[in-house]
Amino acid sequence: MKDFEWSVPTRIVFGNGAVDRLGDEAKPYGKKAMLVYGQSSIKNTGLYDRVRSSLQNAGIAVVDFGGAKSNPILGHVNKGIELAKGERVDFLVAVGGGSVIDTAKAIAIGALTDRDIWDFFTFKALVEKALPIVTVVTIPASGSEMNENVVVTNEQTCEKFGLPAAAVYPRVSIMDPSLTFTVSKPYTAYSAADIFSHVLDAYFTSTADWSPLQDGLAEAVLKAVIRSVDRIMVNPEDYNARSTMMWCATWALNRSIHSGLGYTDTPLHNLEHPVSAACDLPHGAGMSIIIPAWLDSISRQQLSRCAGLAHNVFGIICDDDAEAASRGIAALKDWFDSIGAPTSFSAVGISAVAVENLIETACETNQLRAMGMPLPREYFAGVYNLAR
Amino acid sequence: MKDFEWSVPTRIVFGNGAVDRLGDEAKPYGKKAMLVYGQSSIKNTGLYDRVRSSLQNAGIAVVDFGGAKSNPILGHVNKGIELAKGERVDFLVAVGGGSVIDTAKAIAIGALTDRDIWDFFTFKALVEKALPIVTVVTIPASGSEMNENVVVTNEQTCEKFGLPAAAVYPRVSIMDPSLTFTVSKPYTAYSAADIFSHVLDAYFTSTADWSPLQDGLAEAVLKAVIRSVDRIMVNPEDYNARSTMMWCATWALNRSIHSGLGYTDTPLHNLEHPVSAACDLPHGAGMSIIIPAWLDSISRQQLSRCAGLAHNVFGIICDDDAEAASRGIAALKDWFDSIGAPTSFSAVGISAVAVENLIETACETNQLRAMGMPLPREYFAGVYNLAR
Repeated sequence: MKDFEWSVPTRIVFGNGAVDRLGDEAKPYGKKAMLVYGQSSIKNTGLYDRVRSSLQNAGIAVVDFGGAKSNPILGHVNKGIELAKGERVDFLVAVGGGSVIDTAKAIAIGALTDRDIWDFFTFKALVEKALPIVTVVTIPASGSEMNENVVVTNEQTCEKFGLPAAAVYPRVSIMDPSLTFTVSKPYTAYSAADIFSHVLDAYFTSTADWSPLQDGLAEAVLKAVIRSVDRIMVNPEDYNARSTMMWCATWALNRSIHSGLGYTDTPLHNLEHPVSAACDLPHGAGMSIIIPAWLDSISRQQLSRCAGLAHNVFGIICDDDAEAASRGIAALKDWFDSIGAPTSFSAVGISAVAVENLIETACETNQLRAMGMPLPREYFAGVYNLAR
Repeated sequence: MKDFEWSVPTRIVFGNGAVDRLGDEAKPYGKKAMLVYGQSSIKNTGLYDRVRSSLQNAGIAVVDFGGAKSNPILGHVNKGIELAKGERVDFLVAVGGGSVIDTAKAIAIGALTDRDIWDFFTFKALVEKALPIVTVVTIPASGSEMNENVVVTNEQTCEKFGLPAAAVYPRVSIMDPSLTFTVSKPYTAYSAADIFSHVLDAYFTSTADWSPLQDGLAEAVLKAVIRSVDRIMVNPEDYNARSTMMWCATWALNRSIHSGLGYTDTPLHNLEHPVSAACDLPHGAGMSIIIPAWLDSISRQQLSRCAGLAHNVFGIICDDDAEAASRGIAALKDWFDSIGAPTSFSAVGISAVAVENLIETACETNQLRAMGMPLPREYFAGVYNLAR
């Protein structure tokens, strides 16, 4: 095991109807909140009214800021920063999935600085502070409700960059699984792929030479995702399945299963971010395309790890590691197909020619390049071509 | 899944040599610390000097308070409270295992109240505040370094009671696996049994009707404990094994694997506490005696759960649940035997007659009785007799 520090200041309030506790939970953070949300869906479901009245009953004034999109964009974030500064809000309440929470996180940073917010994403400046953030999760996938990550796309440059900053850990996250009953089957499938990506990035890039606890925890999350999503596909209002999936999403990226692995790389995210930035595809849909192709691309170098995944997650019993690895990857791909997560670029209408362009774009716009460590063309070409 | 709240304010600093960061990590909590420790072992290993000099280099004055014993007793706690009040210490530094950390926790509560500390253990008073606590873990077992539990024995009444209080979460816990190289093989085995008990209490008393994530996490901890302890028995200085076991101990009782289970009972602790209180046996040694007997006693009622444990932790493949359960319990007992953890009262010199007395004592001194919910004689007799 590698050395690590662990400190997760987020309080979780998890349960059926938990959303109505929002006002009381948010009270310690001030009298004026900016309500960050996405498109019209929370108005259609009545959640918007529930949230506003819970805040207002707690004596909290609300500044409305809707319109966050899947793959949150810098232009929208900058509008939010301007509004937060102008209204002098005390804190932010994010109601939505990862895109909404990340929009709120970026605004929380930007509201307390005069620097261009993009400077933080390109590591020209370090985040020192942020306004407090309270979240109400409606799409479990990103884990952003209990972590320090923010991902934003600069739509001018087509760069989708991530930023870790301890200051943006949400203070409280309200997790009410009943709010996720209305997440569509396709989005549930994309979310499952997103959760897989958070687990697998760590599982395959660990630099620890022995980590049975972390491996077992990672495999437990993956198995529980599979079991819960299979139940959700049959009954989208299965509370046990929705709650399990919701907690899995948090666990896949709240540092718990990563502690002691000493991993430093996120190959799946390096590969996927240029895709969803360029094609405006949901991040999770990009992931279900990338993951099986990437596993194919590394399976020779990571044979025992791939075989372990096959055995421990998919129950494949086979003495030959190469065959086990290959059967495991096929089982994952089949499972993504069975739940409606795309497993090829062609499945989402991205042609072979478009894939060629995507390879070039990825070389130009990936975050490591911006950090002075450009990735070679083959890094993207190898996997993207396998995913055609 | 059941509703829950999660909030773990402890910061973990984990790694080889981490103990030398104690002074810097403790600095935010004041200028004068009470150093709580156990017997002479930390002086023999040189740890005492390392700890003192790290604190002194950080400008922290140290009030010395050694002498905590396995199964910390109220008399010693009360001496510590008097000293902490007299010296007006700002915070406590606990260097040791669960007994030392729990001694510090009890002193931290007592230092800020005029009430008799035992009133809190008998629920006549509620804990509202405590001095800050910093820990350096030397025996991983109790999980006390990252939880809100305190266990103290009232040696006058022979009552060993536990108390949960959010105020006693350690602020920082320093976890340096190299400090555990000197934990003896017997104590390592007892610790393994203690870790099992924390996981199994939750695993078997969950009131959730579907919890694949929590079950998988629990099983992952148990499997990792087995793998790491087997390596430690071969080489006590196996860093990977010591670090894995250390992190397993924390995880077994830091609320993570329990969240969403809605469990309310701790049968193994109800059964064991009277034993170690009356016989001054290490808690973990009591647990390795109690656990297999208790599993035998519940296996008919909890057949599928016992079979799941057998399959998922011990790899037993068997279509018949009753046979799987029985083979799983035997496998656990064999494993305890193989590492030198006692699995019967007779193995620790407690005779059949003494067991009879123990049943009576347990009826008189168990914590639920003090809370007005006395447990029947059969509760103890059933399991103790199976463990003769």
